[in-house]
Amino acid sequence: MAKDKAPGRPRAETPKGFRDYFGAEVSERKAMLDTIAEVYHRYGFDPLETSAVETVEALGKFLPDVDRPNEGVFAWQDEDKDWLALRYDLTAPLARVAAQFRNDLPSPYRRYAMGPVWRNEKPGPGRFRQFYQCDADTVGSSSVAADAEICAMLADALEATGIPRGDYVVKVNNRKVLNGVMEVAGVLDPADPERFAHERGIVLRAIDKIDRLGPEGVRALLGEGRKDESGDFTKGAGLSAEQAGVIMSFVAANTQIDRRLYDAAKFEAASNSGLEPIALNAWAAGNFSDAKLIPEVYQTHRNRFVCEYLDEIVGKSEQGKQGVNELREIQTLLSAQGYDASRIKVDPSVVRGLAYYTGPVFEAELTFEILDEKGRPRQFGSVAGGGRYDGLVRRFTGQEVPATGVSIGVDRLLAALRAKGRTQADTRGPVVVTVMDRERMADYQAMAGELRREGIRAEVYLGNPKNFGNQLKYADKRQSPVAVIQGADEAARGVVQLKDLILGARIAAEATHEEWKAQPAQSEVARGDLVAAVRRLLDRR
Amino acid sequence: MAKDKAPGRPRAETPKGFRDYFGAEVSERKAMLDTIAEVYHRYGFDPLETSAVETVEALGKFLPDVDRPNEGVFAWQDEDKDWLALRYDLTAPLARVAAQFRNDLPSPYRRYAMGPVWRNEKPGPGRFRQFYQCDADTVGSSSVAADAEICAMLADALEATGIPRGDYVVKVNNRKVLNGVMEVAGVLDPADPERFAHERGIVLRAIDKIDRLGPEGVRALLGEGRKDESGDFTKGAGLSAEQAGVIMSFVAANTQIDRRLYDAAKFEAASNSGLEPIALNAWAAGNFSDAKLIPEVYQTHRNRFVCEYLDEIVGKSEQGKQGVNELREIQTLLSAQGYDASRIKVDPSVVRGLAYYTGPVFEAELTFEILDEKGRPRQFGSVAGGGRYDGLVRRFTGQEVPATGVSIGVDRLLAALRAKGRTQADTRGPVVVTVMDRERMADYQAMAGELRREGIRAEVYLGNPKNFGNQLKYADKRQSPVAVIQGADEAARGVVQLKDLILGARIAAEATHEEWKAQPAQSEVARGDLVAAVRRLLDRR
Repeated sequence: MAKDKAPGRPRAETPKGFRDYFGAEVSERKAMLDTIAEVYHRYGFDPLETSAVETVEALGKFLPDVDRPNEGVFAWQDEDKDWLALRYDLTAPLARVAAQFRNDLPSPYRRYAMGPVWRNEKPGPGRFRQFYQCDADTVGSSSVAADAEICAMLADALEATGIPRGDYVVKVNNRKVLNGVMEVAGVLDPADPERFAHERGIVLRAIDKIDRLGPEGVRALLGEGRKDESGDFTKGAGLSAEQAGVIMSFVAANTQIDRRLYDAAKFEAASNSGLEPIALNAWAAGNFSDAKLIPEVYQTHRNRFVCEYLDEIVGKSEQGKQGVNELREIQTLLSAQGYDASRIKVDPSVVRGLAYYTGPVFEAELTFEILDEKGRPRQFGSVAGGGRYDGLVRRFTGQEVPATGVSIGVDRLLAALRAKGRTQADTRGPVVVTVMDRERMADYQAMAGELRREGIRAEVYLGNPKNFGNQLKYADKRQSPVAVIQGADEAARGVVQLKDLILGARIAAEATHEEWKAQPAQSEVARGDLVAAVRRLLDRR
Repeated sequence: MAKDKAPGRPRAETPKGFRDYFGAEVSERKAMLDTIAEVYHRYGFDPLETSAVETVEALGKFLPDVDRPNEGVFAWQDEDKDWLALRYDLTAPLARVAAQFRNDLPSPYRRYAMGPVWRNEKPGPGRFRQFYQCDADTVGSSSVAADAEICAMLADALEATGIPRGDYVVKVNNRKVLNGVMEVAGVLDPADPERFAHERGIVLRAIDKIDRLGPEGVRALLGEGRKDESGDFTKGAGLSAEQAGVIMSFVAANTQIDRRLYDAAKFEAASNSGLEPIALNAWAAGNFSDAKLIPEVYQTHRNRFVCEYLDEIVGKSEQGKQGVNELREIQTLLSAQGYDASRIKVDPSVVRGLAYYTGPVFEAELTFEILDEKGRPRQFGSVAGGGRYDGLVRRFTGQEVPATGVSIGVDRLLAALRAKGRTQADTRGPVVVTVMDRERMADYQAMAGELRREGIRAEVYLGNPKNFGNQLKYADKRQSPVAVIQGADEAARGVVQLKDLILGARIAAEATHEEWKAQPAQSEVARGDLVAAVRRLLDRR
């Protein structure tokens, strides 16, 4: 670019951390969001589109996620010296709307919102300062039926976009259960919720690192602390062995539950319940969590076992017991509608944005494998998350308004659909009608018009027609499937030439000379057959 | 709101000049833009989505429209002290993209863009600081075929959104013709384009006011000046009688052309060409421009007459003659494709954003009448405009790149579709399944699930179910067509009650007691027939 930069000329560049989206990128995202919107709409959710700009006062200065308090917003002062800012998410504007229009909106108010948000963060590879969010929330319902509905709707939305059943799971946990664990472990005092906040922070971060550090690492962080490979020491929460034991039994929940399920399955197998031996064998080999191998027992009993196990841990905490009961109720509602544990399962390991949430929390994971940047297979992972939060409107009105919702990671889900070849947009290039004779532009336009009227994407080449090679290069760049050619000779004979550009490219890449002769990528058809012949070429694929 | 504003609590308000869009407002706009995008896509145009944020350097400080140089942008400094701003239109980002990616994009590059833009202007009634634009442009083609294509595509898009043929007209003019008129009138010197700029400004503004001031008012402004009703004097351009005469013959073009068409029609009628007498009579009565009354002659000949007339005025100007020839070529291309003068017509009165445009200019007008705020019928007017502009990329690269495009006024067109009852979104509220028995929530969810699986929008009431009246009020607020009711008694008997809320509202408003009894708004159906029965109620409308 530098060579073009004459003095006084502006640079043709996006600001750092921003990007443009072209053609298929736009269409594929739009098709995905349209599909999701259709599901949300069918569930009775209404679209809401707030403006990109809010007052800083209404927005609050920082993101609600306390783990990242320094993330900023793009803000400026208007002519009245009020500070305005671009929204950093779709929840803060919902809070403002729910307060501003609380007398006009139906209650409960179900709404979905899709659109860009802006973060004044340091950009990085694949990390942009403008990106899409896609949220659905129910404001004004304290019923766990609202949470269950969000989970079911999320599962339906994922399937509608093209994620097949079995390739995703919606995991549900409850913040109250975690609070119960903290209570029982003596790091949460219901009478003084602020006490032990520091210790709880360390405990939460430790639990969240289970995948990376393993049980020993987490255990160390609960106690005195942990020295990592580099020799750096991280100070721990200083819990006693007994306290740490409570937390560790929670951390080990999934493994313990699978072991109990195994025992139950063995018992059922012994009583000849029809469980397939292959499933038991796989299980015995340690594949506890492979739901595909042990569908019946796993799906029927897992959620029940989880709740039993959690009840044992948090039994001494009122809040903890309430949390487990809520999980039970969600489960009952969902299984009654056919959402079994292969699609929506209770999972104590879900520890997301917990400062924000006050009840059930959800996370949707894609369970198929993709190759990471080093070519190693890894599970695709999380594409959506959410939960219940009661503080939504309190900042504005002082009132607690119950709310629950979910946010789909638009770029993540789109990447997954691309990885699986399941994007739904028609991203084919147009049929290009070339211009052999500038004087007959009206004829070429008529051809494109006929194709369009039959629903076929088509255009006339409108650059300088002198160099015919440039026209075909253009058609290639447009990923055009077919080029239409009619010179003076063809016009006189009442025919057109159709050049099959996709077959042409394949022949050029692969075919032998014989094949090339047998399967010509160019054919002549009567002018009157233009539309039908192009249609045949397009349909062949 | 004030009563809720405790100390330290933020106000729940949008910033001044911004607003929220709810439910049907969002769906209807989306349906309209989707329809337009489909037409544009079929014409070979690719979607482009640039970020909302640009560098102020790339954006240029002001809008390109010199008539409003003080309109500002929302801008702020980032951490590197670079100034960033929200885009004020979709053309400036296109210019940046066309320069930044000029080696990668196909040429010509056809793109469409739809999205919000932001203006830091004083807000007013119906005038917001964030609004949608919807643009289509072809960059890199100097052929008038590109201009003609834009006009045809615009006509197709308007019809697709629901504006019937006959209710719109795309008017085409050419800036070169206007330049030619200025040349012939001696207020444009091709050798020194800056000369007479002041006079031309007055002339342009005068021409633009023809509808308000009439010929006498315009004539006064071309000469010494004009005193308005209040006695205020506006200084004129100071043209001689001869100079003003040239401009006035241009201003009178439409009337003159219609008169010539009338004479031609009389001649044709005299030679028994089959023109309907009624058309001639209407014409004789002065209804020159009513295309509906005189379809054959008007549509066939009008565009030809316009070009002949303009040729007579600008004959001495090279640029003027070129402009008329371009109009002729556009017309030939369009009529060959069946776009006659009832849909796309050459109209010398189109004088839009002329500082910006360099060739053909277009404007789409809706010709049906609506009532203005005082209840008087008036023509709906302009909903789209555009034209050719060659300065697009020059700011960045120093090169002239030919470009032509059109912008649809999203809010205007949407208002027109609403006025005609032609919006295309499904904005019906959901079927509401009420909750008579909190313990049977799973049953109610199952009902909603069954309805949804058949594509019927449905939801369970998730507020506090204690007060049944509140549930029905909620259903009303949701504009629900049907409420489903099942208490313990109905559950025991295996039936549900369906309350037809639309019929119910109608009966409550209109019906006599006899009708009310004969056509009950509530009916009982077997639980197994729920979906079919709801479907029947919905289909009846």
